[in-house]
Amino acid sequence: MKILITGFDPFGGEKINPAIEAVKKLPDEIDGNQIIKLEVPTIFYQSAKVVREAIEKERPDIVINVGQAGGRAAITPERIAINFQAGSTPDNSGKGPKEGKIEADGADGYFTQLPIKKMVTAMRKAGIPAEISNSAGTYVCNHLFYEVQYMRRHEFPNLKAGFIHIPFLPDQVKNGRRPSMNLSDMVAGLTVSIKAAVAD
Amino acid sequence: MKILITGFDPFGGEKINPAIEAVKKLPDEIDGNQIIKLEVPTIFYQSAKVVREAIEKERPDIVINVGQAGGRAAITPERIAINFQAGSTPDNSGKGPKEGKIEADGADGYFTQLPIKKMVTAMRKAGIPAEISNSAGTYVCNHLFYEVQYMRRHEFPNLKAGFIHIPFLPDQVKNGRRPSMNLSDMVAGLTVSIKAAVAD
Amino acid sequence: MKILITGFDPFGGEKINPAIEAVKKLPDEIDGNQIIKLEVPTIFYQSAKVVREAIEKERPDIVINVGQAGGRAAITPERIAINFQAGSTPDNSGKGPKEGKIEADGADGYFTQLPIKKMVTAMRKAGIPAEISNSAGTYVCNHLFYEVQYMRRHEFPNLKAGFIHIPFLPDQVKNGRRPSMNLSDMVAGLTVSIKAAVAD
Amino acid sequence: MKILITGFDPFGGEKINPAIEAVKKLPDEIDGNQIIKLEVPTIFYQSAKVVREAIEKERPDIVINVGQAGGRAAITPERIAINFQAGSTPDNSGKGPKEGKIEADGADGYFTQLPIKKMVTAMRKAGIPAEISNSAGTYVCNHLFYEVQYMRRHEFPNLKAGFIHIPFLPDQVKNGRRPSMNLSDMVAGLTVSIKAAVAD
Repeated sequence: MKILITGFDPFGGEKINPAIEAVKKLPDEIDGNQIIKLEVPTIFYQSAKVVREAIEKERPDIVINVGQAGGRAAITPERIAINFQAGSTPDNSGKGPKEGKIEADGADGYFTQLPIKKMVTAMRKAGIPAEISNSAGTYVCNHLFYEVQYMRRHEFPNLKAGFIHIPFLPDQVKNGRRPSMNLSDMVAGLTVSIKAAVAD
Repeated sequence: MKILITGFDPFGGEKINPAIEAVKKLPDEIDGNQIIKLEVPTIFYQSAKVVREAIEKERPDIVINVGQAGGRAAITPERIAINFQAGSTPDNSGKGPKEGKIEADGADGYFTQLPIKKMVTAMRKAGIPAEISNSAGTYVCNHLFYEVQYMRRHEFPNLKAGFIHIPFLPDQVKNGRRPSMNLSDMVAGLTVSIKAAVAD
Repeated sequence: MKILITGFDPFGGEKINPAIEAVKKLPDEIDGNQIIKLEVPTIFYQSAKVVREAIEKERPDIVINVGQAGGRAAITPERIAINFQAGSTPDNSGKGPKEGKIEADGADGYFTQLPIKKMVTAMRKAGIPAEISNSAGTYVCNHLFYEVQYMRRHEFPNLKAGFIHIPFLPDQVKNGRRPSMNLSDMVAGLTVSIKAAVAD
Repeated sequence: MKILITGFDPFGGEKINPAIEAVKKLPDEIDGNQIIKLEVPTIFYQSAKVVREAIEKERPDIVINVGQAGGRAAITPERIAINFQAGSTPDNSGKGPKEGKIEADGADGYFTQLPIKKMVTAMRKAGIPAEISNSAGTYVCNHLFYEVQYMRRHEFPNLKAGFIHIPFLPDQVKNGRRPSMNLSDMVAGLTVSIKAAVAD
């Protein structure tokens, strides 16, 4: 199989984004499956455009978008993408999202096609804190997750797609007021998640 | 210098205690200073007895007790030991503490002699979440911290002593509902803390 | 207008459920609109059956289901109901949910028809902590929310429906380790929410 | 008996301080004991000066200082005042504290003379979330608590003194990201705490 895995670039004043850091450290092959890594801009619609181009070029079997969920203490595969965007923080284009639906004719929500429960089980077995999340929020992460599901519905029906949120890196929360996770644990968690997804 | 560093054994139904795990992984020498590692039982008074014997035998310059503070997201050197014990959980002897003063004639509180602010700064510089804590609680951790301070006051006036709390290991909180820290980060944090303490 | 507002009965070992306590304290009329109050059992499918009967009998314009979200510190109107149920705690029939879809042919998610942003604004203006929630979980609360949306889609297209989560009452968390909200604040919050909904 | 109870004025950009709001709402007499209410400035040393003047003038049997602990979900009587001040936020004089000891010749810590366990029990019995706190922090609250203990030790040996931290008011945390408590619950909690203190 061919797996396209993406990570966002740094945003919101952070110098690094654990998402792209962890994605970059993945091997190029997992259990004989090809891993294609892609950095995407933390920008509404633009991020989806970049992923679409990669899907058209690479024709992956699975797409996994990875993003940071600051404040969470576990790796959290997302269950559902929702057709709504909001948020007061500007994205990396300098503008915040126009509050409202992402796609005028899209469904209210789309479930992921990834085996999120098996992924969580595999991560916990590997000693990595993990839990299914029922909300990817309303910012760029959910936006990209939704857009890929929308594309899948209309253009790439055989694609399996999903989103994984990862915590802050220790270096991002030096005062320890919020939880963090070591980069090597993130990479290990993503690796066993990918194995669970391809085995499904 | 000679540094005695202790870690508690597992308690409360846990199979491992990050405290002794991290202590065991420290090198035997840091910046030319001898590191003496000691496992102590999670038992009121008994833990203090074991540390006293090691102090008498080894005559260390510095004593650092390490314990787990489940739920914290950072390594937290403690500022003050208080003359009070309480808690409904039985210790490893099967009994809980008798609620009240630890030492009838002891001071209400004793400040640590360790340079906790410098230790926190050194850990953060090394990318490890760290913060000073103003309370070691009222269970075995504070008890041992207090007892060593009480000994110091009455018998070992040249000793510098203190307590460092560390988070859960990832493996202890697999559902990620509480924060954790990688063992290698704990070891790195304790190492730079020891360096800061000996340099003080 | 006619508003049907429901609250769950106590479950999970609790003696009271703030949901039904707060609902019972609402006035019978708000801004000239009739308020019909209904206690529903904390049981999968059974709760939906009871609400369906009330909808058929009363033909309300608006249905608002109220449930407890222990651990939240604000009143949180929910944005989306999802077609998924899970949970290891037995409901009040003594059985947990069969993990999986709630309705085999239902959409993955349904957005509420309530003006949740206006409701939150109204509550905050009244001094009540409030925030939109993007997940009602996967237990009985989301189940009932989803089932009412599913009914609406197939049978009652003119109905506006939604779900509001409320915190623990102070009496439920006497050690203060989790947030709570005073009953009078809950009643005030629900009242202004209803006003916002009928004005929409 | 005569009870002097103090509350801080608003600080840190807040328009109100729940401490003085709750204190002002206390009755002038509780169980036949006189309640003297005093607003104190949120300023290092100046707050202690104001309290000293009131002690000298009123000669109370009990002094209770009340302050806000934003983020806590319970009323928390404090166990110990520590001889240390720090903090980067300026107090109401526009300056932050000089980091270090509060009193050069003071003890490291002083336990309260109030029956904090009985106070917590009484509050919980009244349905108010309550818990003993082992740290009043290192800002103006702990400072005033410590200074009153220091005065007591050196000048007013018969005084019983202590500190009670209270949560945010609902109006201060409208987005509900942090816990709050209704003003009437705060007043009820302080009232039963005073009863427990005078009965001790």
